[in-house]
This record gives sequence, structure tokens and C-alpha cells, in this order.
Amino acid sequence: MTNSELRVTDKTRLIRNPARGSYDRKLAYEIIDSTPMCHVSYVIGGEPYITPTFQWRDGNDIFWHGSSASRFLRNVAGASVALNVMLFDGIVLARSAYHHSANFRSVTIFGQAVQLEGDEKTAALKRFVDGLTPGRWETLRPMTDQEIKATAVLKMPIDEASVKLRDGAPADDEEDYALPVWAGVIQVSQAVGDAIPDDRNLPGVEVPDHVSGFTLG
Amino acid sequence: MTNSELRVTDKTRLIRNPARGSYDRKLAYEIIDSTPMCHVSYVIGGEPYITPTFQWRDGNDIFWHGSSASRFLRNVAGASVALNVMLFDGIVLARSAYHHSANFRSVTIFGQAVQLEGDEKTAALKRFVDGLTPGRWETLRPMTDQEIKATAVLKMPIDEASVKLRDGAPADDEEDYALPVWAGVIQVSQAVGDAIPDDRNLPGVEVPDHVSGFTLG
Repeated sequence: MTNSELRVTDKTRLIRNPARGSYDRKLAYEIIDSTPMCHVSYVIGGEPYITPTFQWRDGNDIFWHGSSASRFLRNVAGASVALNVMLFDGIVLARSAYHHSANFRSVTIFGQAVQLEGDEKTAALKRFVDGLTPGRWETLRPMTDQEIKATAVLKMPIDEASVKLRDGAPADDEEDYALPVWAGVIQVSQAVGDAIPDDRNLPGVEVPDHVSGFTLG
Repeated sequence: MTNSELRVTDKTRLIRNPARGSYDRKLAYEIIDSTPMCHVSYVIGGEPYITPTFQWRDGNDIFWHGSSASRFLRNVAGASVALNVMLFDGIVLARSAYHHSANFRSVTIFGQAVQLEGDEKTAALKRFVDGLTPGRWETLRPMTDQEIKATAVLKMPIDEASVKLRDGAPADDEEDYALPVWAGVIQVSQAVGDAIPDDRNLPGVEVPDHVSGFTLG
């Protein structure tokens, strides 16, 4: 059974602004499921590296993938990584520069990534495609053995992790509310736009539901 | 004089897909200026950490800030960091799972951050506020000495850096174009929404141009 709370360690303990933090597993999953993008931080030779990449979740694990030949994936299997999923929700304009802020939702996960092999790897890739675009996997030309070999898939438990978020109005110093400054929030969101068909789609190929009905989160 | 090309090192050399990479400084600046968010990766005790935060650019330097008391900022001054600015532009749906991809624009910068003090620090904070919302700084209640002390501002040259990007249609294997699979791109963008005024704005305070005309990038 999975604990409903994420694990607090020296890495995940929220030092400042604990009111903006949470260890609620369900909330972490909601944020992770709201965008397919993440950033992965890792160390090679004592130096920090960072890579933005797709992520997806299955149960209590988070996954990402890439070329088996990439420096990134060759170095993260078995090593410590820090992974962040973040949604930027708005710019908070306060009455003083100091209280300007961002509205956001963010999950950071620490751990060691395990590289998947065999059926588990293929199942994870199917889960990725069908998680974004339900039912699409079965419509595609099947992956070849060489393509599967060339693709590295990494899995990490969502355990040592924490959530940070901010929403709502500015929080100004009480005396500053008397100032004639416009304060408020400029909302920002990740928007899904048009689906642009490939020029080379065959005549009569219809737009599938997983495209016409596509949403994030 | 600044070189028009970013600096190629073992860290920034584009190993795979060099066609999706660039060392063009102007292109890097365009991407950095298109969103105020970044992710910073750093190392403490040999372990990777990652923090999403605001970033802004002034000339050939990138800046970020936070609480002087934060673990993040206490540990990055003078140390190696890797900073990434990324815009997620679309999901590329190909005819095979293998050629699914993301459209994106990404800049990664490596270097050591310098912590700013005194007038340089205050000028950088003004630049941040006025870069996002031109003219706003002068309308605000001035920062107190204590607020300036509580704010750490970091600066790093945009030098050892590289750009990665992908745009346009799927790139399928030639024989797969004969398949009756819908392929194309689902566009994604960072959208600016409504400006929500604070309930406690004083009567008669008008929406400033830097709010009504707000854009990103």
C-alpha cells in the first residue's frame, strides 16, 4: 500500500514558506498529470546538467525516455536525479516589488532511475502514447526491435518528493493596501491550439478522437 | 565585444541531432526573452537539485533571484549551475511511435553564478520588474533596505550555452507515409489570460498599460 503522503527528507523538507508546500501524493499526481513536460537534473563528474523531456506517470512511478545513445540517458540510469514538473499559472503584481511573485504548481522528485528492458519497456512506451492520445498506439506502425533498442526508458518511484504551489491574489504588507497601485494577477496557462495535419496524410484519413478531443491534464 | 556564437565545450557540444541544435547567440536570446521561467540545476554534496524560478536577461547575462535564506540561493553563488529555459510548442504525432516527438525551443546555459550586491542588485531587480511590466517599478512602494537584504540576486554570463529546438511536421520513415495514420502536430503554447484585479485595489485605480498590454516575449 502506498502512503498518501510523500516522503520528507533533508532534500524534500520545505524550509521556507511551508504554507506554499505540500506532501500530498494526490496533489502531486494531479500536477504531474497536467503537463507532459518535465526537467531532469543530474550530475556528471560533479557538475550539474539539466534536460527538458517528456514525462508520464503510471501509478506511483514517473517515467521518461530518450535515445539510448544520449549523454543524458547513459548517465542517469542508477544515478541520483532530481526531476521537476512545473506549471506556470500567472504573474502576481503586488504593490511593492518585494511581494511580486508567480502563481505556479510544482513537484520535485528525488531518486534513482531504473532503466527498463523487454516487455516492461514496450509497455511503458505504449502507456506514454496512449496516456497522451488514448488508443493511438494500436493505430501506429509497430515499433521495430531496433527502435526499441535505440530507445531508453527510465522509471523512478514518486516517493521522496514535495509539492510547491502558489495561487490567488498578491499578499501585500497591510499598510501598502492604501497605495493607489494596480495590483492583481496576470494569468498564464499552457494552452492547446490547433491540430495541424501533416501535408502528407493520405486522402480520407479522418482526424481521430484523440486529436480532435485532445486536452492536457 | 561579444561573439555571435555561444561557446562549445564538452558540456554544450550537441552530440545527437545536431540539426536540432544551434550556437546562435541571437536565437538563444530570443528564446530566453520569450518566457520569464527557467529551471536551475545545481549540486549539493554530490547530489542533484532542481528549482524552477523566474529569470531575466540584461545584455549578455542571465539573472534570477530568490530569498537570501533559501537553500537554493545559499548554495549556488560561486558554484556550477546548469540553467534551462524551455518553451513547449507542440506534440508531434507521427505514423510510428518512434518518430513521435515534441516541438520546442530550449536554451541550456552552464556556468558559475555571481551574487549581486548594492546598487547592482537593486538595478537588476528594477530591470526584472520593468522588463516584464515596463514602467511598473516607479509606481511601486520602494523596496526597503531589509527587503533588498532578504533578496538574493544571481547573475551568470550567457556564454557556455547551446540551443536545441524542433519545429514543423513529423519526420516519418519514407515507407510509413503510405500508412492511413493521421499524423500532424497538436500545437501547445504559453498563453496570457485575463488580468484579475486584486479585490483590494483602491477605487479609481486604472489598469496600467503594462497590464492591459501585457505580452510574453
